[in-house]
Amino acid sequence: MENFEFVSPTHFVFGRGAEEQVGAKLAERGARRVLLHYGGRSAVESGLIGRVKASLDAAGVACVELGGVRPNPEVGLVRQGVALCKEHGIDWVLAVGGGSVIDSAKAIAVGAHYAGDVWDFFETKQPTDDVLPIAVVLTIPAAGSEASKNAVVSNDALQMKSGYPNNAQRPKLAFMNPELTFTLPEYQTAAGITDMFCHLLERFFDDVGAVPVTDNLNLSLMKTVRAEAPRVMVEPDNYDARANIMWAGMLCHQGLAGAGRHEDWATHGLEHELSALFPHITHGAGLACMFPAWMEYVHGENPTRFAFYGREVFGLAPTGDVDADALSAIDETRAFFASLGMPTTLAELGVGEGDIEKMIPTLRANKGEPFGSFKKLTMDDAREIYRLAL
Amino acid sequence: MENFEFVSPTHFVFGRGAEEQVGAKLAERGARRVLLHYGGRSAVESGLIGRVKASLDAAGVACVELGGVRPNPEVGLVRQGVALCKEHGIDWVLAVGGGSVIDSAKAIAVGAHYAGDVWDFFETKQPTDDVLPIAVVLTIPAAGSEASKNAVVSNDALQMKSGYPNNAQRPKLAFMNPELTFTLPEYQTAAGITDMFCHLLERFFDDVGAVPVTDNLNLSLMKTVRAEAPRVMVEPDNYDARANIMWAGMLCHQGLAGAGRHEDWATHGLEHELSALFPHITHGAGLACMFPAWMEYVHGENPTRFAFYGREVFGLAPTGDVDADALSAIDETRAFFASLGMPTTLAELGVGEGDIEKMIPTLRANKGEPFGSFKKLTMDDAREIYRLAL
Repeated sequence: MENFEFVSPTHFVFGRGAEEQVGAKLAERGARRVLLHYGGRSAVESGLIGRVKASLDAAGVACVELGGVRPNPEVGLVRQGVALCKEHGIDWVLAVGGGSVIDSAKAIAVGAHYAGDVWDFFETKQPTDDVLPIAVVLTIPAAGSEASKNAVVSNDALQMKSGYPNNAQRPKLAFMNPELTFTLPEYQTAAGITDMFCHLLERFFDDVGAVPVTDNLNLSLMKTVRAEAPRVMVEPDNYDARANIMWAGMLCHQGLAGAGRHEDWATHGLEHELSALFPHITHGAGLACMFPAWMEYVHGENPTRFAFYGREVFGLAPTGDVDADALSAIDETRAFFASLGMPTTLAELGVGEGDIEKMIPTLRANKGEPFGSFKKLTMDDAREIYRLAL
Repeated sequence: MENFEFVSPTHFVFGRGAEEQVGAKLAERGARRVLLHYGGRSAVESGLIGRVKASLDAAGVACVELGGVRPNPEVGLVRQGVALCKEHGIDWVLAVGGGSVIDSAKAIAVGAHYAGDVWDFFETKQPTDDVLPIAVVLTIPAAGSEASKNAVVSNDALQMKSGYPNNAQRPKLAFMNPELTFTLPEYQTAAGITDMFCHLLERFFDDVGAVPVTDNLNLSLMKTVRAEAPRVMVEPDNYDARANIMWAGMLCHQGLAGAGRHEDWATHGLEHELSALFPHITHGAGLACMFPAWMEYVHGENPTRFAFYGREVFGLAPTGDVDADALSAIDETRAFFASLGMPTTLAELGVGEGDIEKMIPTLRANKGEPFGSFKKLTMDDAREIYRLAL
């Protein structure tokens, strides 16, 4: 077990009607004027934004609105948000949406008190504690951004997608009402489930030996997600199934599932290049193609770990051939994603052999350095994994 | 899944040498003058207190010492601590020890800015946010007080032991170095493991149906504790085994293992009366006797839940008779505690039939009202459970 630090200060309000408490809880914490940040029309048309505004009004908390966050949020809107914060003396950023909205809100909160351009943080990864407090009304369980320390933002001009980790941008408040997820489109539900499952895989497969307390917790979440996924796909308005997925989605990325481990994150890096280049690709769908390919490419480094995963999560009986057991576990992973309606090949997403070279130079976050920890990947390894995913 | 709120703001510094960072981390957070609170001589003689003081000195943080916390900490010393805080303008309370020291520190932190007697909070359970921030150097994995919202303090004059829950007294910083636990006496290690396992049982058995995400997480911790326990008993200086137990002990009581459940806590209530009346009884040892007795008495309410627990934690194959499966799970629980060297009957602790009536009127926390949730217990039920534990 490696030395680590961990903090997750988010105050969760979970359950039916959670969003009705937004105003009161923010006022309790001294909020006077919030930036209300959201995505497309659905949050408005569903009445959610109206209910949140009513709750703010009732508590005497003023708000400035900024909608229009797109999937794979872009730094341009973030800059608008930063300008609004400065102009209106915003003291909290309130995100209503999924991972894209929350990540955009985090970037705004980081930029609000900064004199330079907010993209600097995504470029240099420099730490800062001078971050506006963030509250979240979660509508899409997937990215785990409601409690995580990470934000991922795209920069269209640079054709880049970059992550910025900072404990100071972990949301201080998260309102999680599973009922808000009943009307999520099937594809978005499935992509979200894939994303959260992959957050666990990234933490489970690394170069650290067994850490039973963390591994068992991680595996318990994998089993939960795998068991609840078909329930929400078949019965989108099953409250308990949606609640289990929503809470699991937070736990998958809050950090406990990797405590004492190095974690890997190579596959997320590979996928970020994919959806930066092809913005129509949903992050979860990209991961559904990339993760099994990564697994196939690297499993020889430690097939026993893959066999253990297969046994615990998919109930695979050991055959005596650990390599075969590892491959079966990878097949089960791909089959699980496929069962949700996710693509299994990049070809299904319109990506071809000729696109691979376009992604290699944009693996900029790694500046050409080897990345990942289960196996250190070179740019040639990256090419091979993209090829396996085709 | 029931509605719930959850917050666990503790910043954990985990691993070898964690305690060397005490001064720097406290200074970063603005601490100027801390109350250094600890128990008996062992913390001083081991050199730990000296190292912590050196770390404070090096960071320019002043300290006022208050040692002498006993097991089942008493309100008298808490009052001394409160007086010291007021006299010296203390701004953080730093507990170095296990659950007793941390609970005493919490009580001091709650009393420090209060004009009345600190016992009021344990009597009335009134909430307050005006609590000094608390830091912890953990030396005994057991109570989970390093992250929990609870403090339990005894009042000898009233022959009472009372709990006070308050999110505001969750420690802000916890330093957890598994090496500090290598020299724990065998009995204390075992009692600690029993205590943490019982924190999971209290959350697993209640009147709420299945909550898979929480139940799976809870069961994963039960499995971890059960598997790592024999390793630390046989090899007390096995770093990884100690690390797994230490981190698990925190997770067992921080709250996630009960999210969305009502939880029960009847058995802790019964045990608190026992160790209030017989201060020589270690909390974990009392629980080792009381929990299987409670289980025997109540399992008929939902034998399926017990059979599920037996299957998942002890690998018991279903026999087709769910009641028999439930009883086997209870036998395994008792055998697990016994395997650690814990007592299995109150008789072994010197408690006899004649003592039962002395405990009934002191079940004061419940003021004679039925308590627990898996099965609502009356005072007659309580008598019967004590009798089964004899």
